[in-house]
Amino acid sequence: MRTITIKPAAITHNLNQVKKFAPETKVLAMVKANAYGHGVAAVLPALQQANGVGVATLIEALEARQLGWDKTIALIEGAFTVDEWRQAIEHDISCVIHHAPQLTWALEHTPPVHCATRVVWLKYNTGMNRLGFNADGVIVAAQRLHEAGYQLILTTHFANADDQTHPLNAMQIQRFNDMLSTLQETVSADVQGSLCNSAGIVNFPTHHHDWVRPGIMLYGSTPVIDQSAYELDLQAAMEFSAQIIALQTVNAGEGIGYGSRWLAQQDTRTALVSVGYGDGYPRVIADKTYVTVIDTINHQSYPCTVIGRVAMDMIVIDVSNVPEGTALNSKVILWGNAPRVDEVATHAGTISYELLCRLSLRPQRLQG
Amino acid sequence: MRTITIKPAAITHNLNQVKKFAPETKVLAMVKANAYGHGVAAVLPALQQANGVGVATLIEALEARQLGWDKTIALIEGAFTVDEWRQAIEHDISCVIHHAPQLTWALEHTPPVHCATRVVWLKYNTGMNRLGFNADGVIVAAQRLHEAGYQLILTTHFANADDQTHPLNAMQIQRFNDMLSTLQETVSADVQGSLCNSAGIVNFPTHHHDWVRPGIMLYGSTPVIDQSAYELDLQAAMEFSAQIIALQTVNAGEGIGYGSRWLAQQDTRTALVSVGYGDGYPRVIADKTYVTVIDTINHQSYPCTVIGRVAMDMIVIDVSNVPEGTALNSKVILWGNAPRVDEVATHAGTISYELLCRLSLRPQRLQG
Repeated sequence: MRTITIKPAAITHNLNQVKKFAPETKVLAMVKANAYGHGVAAVLPALQQANGVGVATLIEALEARQLGWDKTIALIEGAFTVDEWRQAIEHDISCVIHHAPQLTWALEHTPPVHCATRVVWLKYNTGMNRLGFNADGVIVAAQRLHEAGYQLILTTHFANADDQTHPLNAMQIQRFNDMLSTLQETVSADVQGSLCNSAGIVNFPTHHHDWVRPGIMLYGSTPVIDQSAYELDLQAAMEFSAQIIALQTVNAGEGIGYGSRWLAQQDTRTALVSVGYGDGYPRVIADKTYVTVIDTINHQSYPCTVIGRVAMDMIVIDVSNVPEGTALNSKVILWGNAPRVDEVATHAGTISYELLCRLSLRPQRLQG
Repeated sequence: MRTITIKPAAITHNLNQVKKFAPETKVLAMVKANAYGHGVAAVLPALQQANGVGVATLIEALEARQLGWDKTIALIEGAFTVDEWRQAIEHDISCVIHHAPQLTWALEHTPPVHCATRVVWLKYNTGMNRLGFNADGVIVAAQRLHEAGYQLILTTHFANADDQTHPLNAMQIQRFNDMLSTLQETVSADVQGSLCNSAGIVNFPTHHHDWVRPGIMLYGSTPVIDQSAYELDLQAAMEFSAQIIALQTVNAGEGIGYGSRWLAQQDTRTALVSVGYGDGYPRVIADKTYVTVIDTINHQSYPCTVIGRVAMDMIVIDVSNVPEGTALNSKVILWGNAPRVDEVATHAGTISYELLCRLSLRPQRLQG
């Protein structure tokens, strides 16, 4: 059985770690993309100490509301259409405003006084060049929104916050801080600021402003290139596992799987594991990628290398180091405490975020 | 709106293409992994002319039964436990038997006479070294299963059928054909054979035997390395699309997105598209990867390059070649007729199968 086990206690622990980095700051916990693949229904109860949640689509926002989240919900790309803007008002969703059409909708359709949509996350493009107004545009937008009765949170997004040494960071921070001061002086002293994602929370502790926006940290992966999840004391919020469904000995000289990619140098005891890219395990991985086998008989853990090509429904692992008595149906951990998803992602040439998000429907989902 | 549109007519067309390659042969249509990500409920009605469907897990088998599929369902890794074997009998599922424990379950728990589980797909390891008995083992298993009243289909799986010139193919074919003759002579003249997946159907037309097992062909991707889906007259069964949610001009010298990976050589008109790896679009792609923009105003199609890093919720594309009037909300085709998913997969360093399977829950699903 392929199984994804979500650990709410780990998420709560990780939120507390965020609060250690940013004790004075409100927390917008990112639960977009189905809570980075963890399942928003499983994750929200673990985030009760957050001040709000961030989502990428109106559907995700409505889902969080429907699940009973009654605090801030921020739609981080804003409404895509004027109809979505109207629905945001109806359901008390706060929106990012990042380009002219959204500004128009906000000015033409003002929410009631106590509606949460009165809070606007105004996006300033400080160097990511994806979403946001430029400097002139953001000042005009802030002025007009303020006059229309909106409360403003100036926000931007780092392009390279994972790498503390990247020169763009200082430039983005400078632009953001300058603009925030400008708006506070020229528009309203009440304009708030939100600059930091997970990487910014760790790397730029003096620039947290009013709201931080942790994402990947909450799920137990490291957001920075120079510190591991262990070093940041983040706990894995997901365990992805499967089981051994057959054992075999492959003779020296024989290949395994598609493309006969792996060739046995000696007679090798192998195990077939019921998981593949059809479940979300990445198809292209480095030769040293390992899984952890939990022997059903002695309950010991054994790191075992994945050999041959990952297929849609199965992988083969080398169980040479596992005692001969290893039983059929032993649990196999693809990622969790060991290996961490960060390690698997490195072996797959990507980042943990992608592995977590691209899980398929097939694995059964549990909470543990 | 991220949208996955499934085209049942394309699947039926592709099934007919299979039948052109293998006109005399029964067809086991592979619908494992949620029909290669297409959704088994959407796909089954398009496969009415198939003789059976193949799945990887008992849950998938039961889902197909529940959806009203009343013909053969083959569980291609067989039962994982004796309890699953019993459930297979209860729901008339035919199973692969590929190792000793499954043989024991079959001999100790024989299905009633008219139960479809009486048909066993006996797996012979001809060189894939993943599932299956070796030569001695398969003869013993066949004899014992035949004596217990089972009807046998000898089956094996190619490791390299996509590459017609790979030397292992001839060896696997030879071993399979020899064993099938042996079993027909020594066990029962009624033993049937099933050798070919999609690639085998195309590349080895003289070795189709009784059942072929098309998978990826049905969904419109090429199964072979030397012929495209166009050349094989296969139609794309899935269109994956999103929409433009913002337009921007990036100045020469500015970077875009995470890692500032793409640098504007000149002032460049860009568009933000509401899709990312959180939907299943691959994060790591070659620089030349393109999408097709359908202009909402003039309905023309424009190929546009993806620039900068694919993020969780959005990508940026270069719309320099699209008329200035391109409207917000234009449809953007990630894969479908152009580009085909095969092309995107090549740019992502993988195969179409993986892209199709690793789609997330977030895109809305339609039929078209």
